[in-house]
Amino acid sequence: MPLKIYLAGPEVFLPNAREMLDLKAAMARAAGFTPLSPGDLHVPRHPSMRGYAFAISEVNERMMLEADAIIANLTPWRGISADAGTVYELGFMCALDKIAYAYTNIAKRHFERVADYYHGRHATDAEGTPRGPDGLAMEDYELMDNLMLPGGAERRGGKVVIGNAAPDAVYTDTAAFAECLRLIAGHRP
Amino acid sequence: MPLKIYLAGPEVFLPNAREMLDLKAAMARAAGFTPLSPGDLHVPRHPSMRGYAFAISEVNERMMLEADAIIANLTPWRGISADAGTVYELGFMCALDKIAYAYTNIAKRHFERVADYYHGRHATDAEGTPRGPDGLAMEDYELMDNLMLPGGAERRGGKVVIGNAAPDAVYTDTAAFAECLRLIAGHRP
Repeated sequence: MPLKIYLAGPEVFLPNAREMLDLKAAMARAAGFTPLSPGDLHVPRHPSMRGYAFAISEVNERMMLEADAIIANLTPWRGISADAGTVYELGFMCALDKIAYAYTNIAKRHFERVADYYHGRHATDAEGTPRGPDGLAMEDYELMDNLMLPGGAERRGGKVVIGNAAPDAVYTDTAAFAECLRLIAGHRP
Repeated sequence: MPLKIYLAGPEVFLPNAREMLDLKAAMARAAGFTPLSPGDLHVPRHPSMRGYAFAISEVNERMMLEADAIIANLTPWRGISADAGTVYELGFMCALDKIAYAYTNIAKRHFERVADYYHGRHATDAEGTPRGPDGLAMEDYELMDNLMLPGGAERRGGKVVIGNAAPDAVYTDTAAFAECLRLIAGHRP
């Protein structure tokens, strides 16, 4: 039985959503896996927007329960951190001790992205903690996002692959995703 | 046995982290619960930053496994969406079908915050989907964040409480948190 992999990520929001979802699914199949993609584009319309949204949530969770593994696209999304839906899904799969891999297409680390957010106006406090001008502490673990994300995947034997896509291909470059597929093929629990 | 509640949120990053964590824990105890707070401030230093970060990840996950419930502070964090670590933790607890409540201290909905991010320069495409000038689709489900977050909590009988804190008390106001405690006291699975 081929491993079933849930392909989490913000692809559903792209102008070429269908094309990107199909491309990633085809790559997963070519690597010998059964892909499961977020159901946003398949869920029938619903009289209430909330009901529609919750139907998508239910479909996605059901697919995750069925999947053996997740590959989460954690590329920063409209700001510093990964898409919140994808992060929820990574936590969901880690709690179930499924095989968890992830990638980002932006090589710059979390700390540097937060420093950019503050336009470099951060400073170190008396205890040695870097803080923004708003007083909020800046984690500096040399990681790609909040520590719970790589911690959850990598402590379970998975990996967060750090890609470095061209600025105009941040959401379409598939090199880091391909590397996740390659690593899962060799994954030993 | 009092219900054990994991108090997820970005409080660990506040200038008054210890004070806020203690205040929320005291409120939870006063409401008859046993609070479990993220372990970031308790984990001993480690020779490598990565090792230290992953030790925090492990401690937090162990506390979640022990907890019966989560109250996640999903107040937007350095941008549009909730703190990524907290979102991971909400997904983690929902996967385990624990009792899941959450709150935000910012009443403005996700769609409006995304519109602010684009400085109002969004437009509706030929299919009726609102998109930013970057072409990325804007979800409009009248929800407080990505649909997976309220979907996960509320489809399990929990609730996302929408607070409306003063601008200078967005990370310290406890009214919405108190309402979560009140609701959990009456929670029936």
